[in-house]
Amino acid sequence: MKFSPLVDELIQSLRCLPGVGPKSAQRMAFQLLERERSSGAHLADTLAKAMREVGHCQSCRTFTEEEKCSICASSKRGNSETICVVETPADVLAVESGGHFSGRYFVLLGHLSPLDGVGPDELGLHLLEQHLASGDVNELILATNPTVEGDATAHFIGDIAARYEVKVTRIAHGVPVGGELEYVDSTTLALSFTGRKQL
Amino acid sequence: MKFSPLVDELIQSLRCLPGVGPKSAQRMAFQLLERERSSGAHLADTLAKAMREVGHCQSCRTFTEEEKCSICASSKRGNSETICVVETPADVLAVESGGHFSGRYFVLLGHLSPLDGVGPDELGLHLLEQHLASGDVNELILATNPTVEGDATAHFIGDIAARYEVKVTRIAHGVPVGGELEYVDSTTLALSFTGRKQL
Ligand SMILES: [Zn+2]
Ligand SMILES: [Zn+2]
Repeated sequence: MKFSPLVDELIQSLRCLPGVGPKSAQRMAFQLLERERSSGAHLADTLAKAMREVGHCQSCRTFTEEEKCSICASSKRGNSETICVVETPADVLAVESGGHFSGRYFVLLGHLSPLDGVGPDELGLHLLEQHLASGDVNELILATNPTVEGDATAHFIGDIAARYEVKVTRIAHGVPVGGELEYVDSTTLALSFTGRKQL
Repeated sequence: MKFSPLVDELIQSLRCLPGVGPKSAQRMAFQLLERERSSGAHLADTLAKAMREVGHCQSCRTFTEEEKCSICASSKRGNSETICVVETPADVLAVESGGHFSGRYFVLLGHLSPLDGVGPDELGLHLLEQHLASGDVNELILATNPTVEGDATAHFIGDIAARYEVKVTRIAHGVPVGGELEYVDSTTLALSFTGRKQL
């Protein structure tokens, strides 16, 4: 015991947050106790409610407290024949902010990582396969991250999709628009050459 | 709205924590939702309880859910004639870890900072004055941080104490100027106690 039992427990509990070590947990606890009592109480309420009520969209797996997320629930986009596969809900947000994609998503909530116990089941791939088998999907766009794990995951999903009459594409990788060639890493640069298109 | 309403509210609520911006709040929310449901629920419980039940020690002002903290409640230290004035509960911890001080504390929970609206009342100085007026205090050790604000606070308290028959000392030797008490090693801190000077 360092402080009072309840204060110690608060500091210890805050350490479940990613990136929060002993010192920052202590700083957080004291700031909440000193001058953020109502914000702290509101965080406690929201956190309890979210941990209890937020589940996965039945169709795309993203986090939502409803049966389906707003995109899957919309009559226009929810029945789109194009599905974009991404790793995280934040990736959905990134693609949405581009404003150029009007299909629906499938959110893996991760990538294949056997060492961490993340296999096809953990990524909900049987649910994705149900979508493919339904005959309602025309194109599957694989927008996993251009990392070793993201690429491996994309290839794995591509192999599954090959069993169905579905067009499978992978988003293009190359030099970012507005970027300067000399600051782009060599792998990206290599990809931009292999993926070059005739003008 | 970016994600579902409840997920958005969780991300927003997490931003009341110090040092947590939009990106880290998002990362925290997703990690809790993905694989820390029970830790998250436990944090919510503890946080709610702490915001509701943790108050101030009636004697020294530090955070505790009891009427008095463990030091003030102990018959040996709680009646000590020596009071060490520190800025934060973490400073109490730092002095305690040195193991050389056996008196009691008075925790200001801050320092004088007129621009932030922190005056004598916010630091509980009338409670400290009650201790001085009671005749039970022999020596007041001012262990506020050796910063401009900490020094100003120490002088302000020294002026109050001058009205009473109390020896007032300021820790001096060893603590690096501009440093913060809770990060000083215990040997240095011990030197600062043995080398204290009368104000
Ligand atoms: Zn959905
Ligand atoms: Zn106390």
